[in-house]
Amino acid sequence: MRYELYYWPGIQGRGEYVRLALEEAGADYVDVARSERGMGAMMRMMAAKGGTRPFAPPFLKAGKLVIGQTANILFYLGSRHGLAPKSEAAKLWVHQLQLTITDFVLEIHDTHHPLGPTLYYEDQRSEAKKRTREFWKQRVPKYLGYFERLIEENGGAHVSGRKLTYVDLSLFQIVEGLRYAFPRHMKAFERRIPSLLELHDRVARRANIKAYLSSDRRIPFNEDGIFRYYRELDQ
Amino acid sequence: MRYELYYWPGIQGRGEYVRLALEEAGADYVDVARSERGMGAMMRMMAAKGGTRPFAPPFLKAGKLVIGQTANILFYLGSRHGLAPKSEAAKLWVHQLQLTITDFVLEIHDTHHPLGPTLYYEDQRSEAKKRTREFWKQRVPKYLGYFERLIEENGGAHVSGRKLTYVDLSLFQIVEGLRYAFPRHMKAFERRIPSLLELHDRVARRANIKAYLSSDRRIPFNEDGIFRYYRELDQ
Repeated sequence: MRYELYYWPGIQGRGEYVRLALEEAGADYVDVARSERGMGAMMRMMAAKGGTRPFAPPFLKAGKLVIGQTANILFYLGSRHGLAPKSEAAKLWVHQLQLTITDFVLEIHDTHHPLGPTLYYEDQRSEAKKRTREFWKQRVPKYLGYFERLIEENGGAHVSGRKLTYVDLSLFQIVEGLRYAFPRHMKAFERRIPSLLELHDRVARRANIKAYLSSDRRIPFNEDGIFRYYRELDQ
Repeated sequence: MRYELYYWPGIQGRGEYVRLALEEAGADYVDVARSERGMGAMMRMMAAKGGTRPFAPPFLKAGKLVIGQTANILFYLGSRHGLAPKSEAAKLWVHQLQLTITDFVLEIHDTHHPLGPTLYYEDQRSEAKKRTREFWKQRVPKYLGYFERLIEENGGAHVSGRKLTYVDLSLFQIVEGLRYAFPRHMKAFERRIPSLLELHDRVARRANIKAYLSSDRRIPFNEDGIFRYYRELDQ
């Protein structure tokens, strides 16, 4: 079965957590909105009457299923491609971790959009500065400190269990993104998360991930995505 | 088995979505942090080394399992208490809807905390006004419009399928909360969501929910929770 991934074509955004899982799994998929007439197809699915119409991208078409919400898609893919543990308890645990990452991703987005997703960054620059200050003072230490301790307690190789899960892939992306968006802040912070950085490096070395990152399937970071570099927010 | 729910004792907050599900199911549970020494027990579980330590409340202890993240808890409870459909496809769909509600709940929270959860409301009042304006102009119509159409297309009684699910219970809470926090805004908006209001009323009439709402297990809304009434935000 060929999966169809639907996501905004110009950014990594929330779709990237799904792409990383599909790529690591070596799954057959097409990134629909990046193909010709793909955006039209995506918009039609979101406007379709009846059925499981998603609220927003990303969503994944898997045969007849249409699955929305990043963490939900990963929950589905994880079981099918060996990227999640098998027992119910462990499945719920890695899903819980992914939902915590989801919360963090929204807080990352809100550093540049504290007044909400409907206004331009340019209309909320001073608010963005204030929110970013709190973000680095309080929220990054809380979230990344949490994952750092989990990795440490789990022996250092993965965040949970003895095998790679989609949560490890997502944590790789978090480190990549924070390095892109906040190079100065992140540089100063990295000494506090040695285990997370090691996990990041280990993921980056995986054959399928390595091949993906150097392909044109990986969209470069840019200032339309979740992780944006604004020099004024990185002082 | 007696469930143990762990959540901040003074507010409805995110714990309320879990409480509503437990109450509707007639499940045996204790709201731990509301009992003597309960807060201490909750803090100890969050600080515990190893195992499935949650990032934040609410979390549910079910035998040996400790499950965090509201939507994840509901996913678990839904299957066990007839509050979710049985097929995998339908299970993923209602979970997806719950995750969309989760996103909305965070946007509701951010109307009074646009600069993040670490500052007081008093330190972000003017930003809160701006964010609230966008919230009612753009975000409420988008989110509630989405659920309104789903309920309509599904025949009017439930958001999905032919039986009550935990998503219906959560939508009841969303309507209750918006009426409390933004009585003027909500009053003007309600004519646009007749199906959602009918669903709300139908949930409110259910025997277990009715009994719960009039009991002292239901914490009144207040200005420490997600839904807060600030007159200046409801002009």
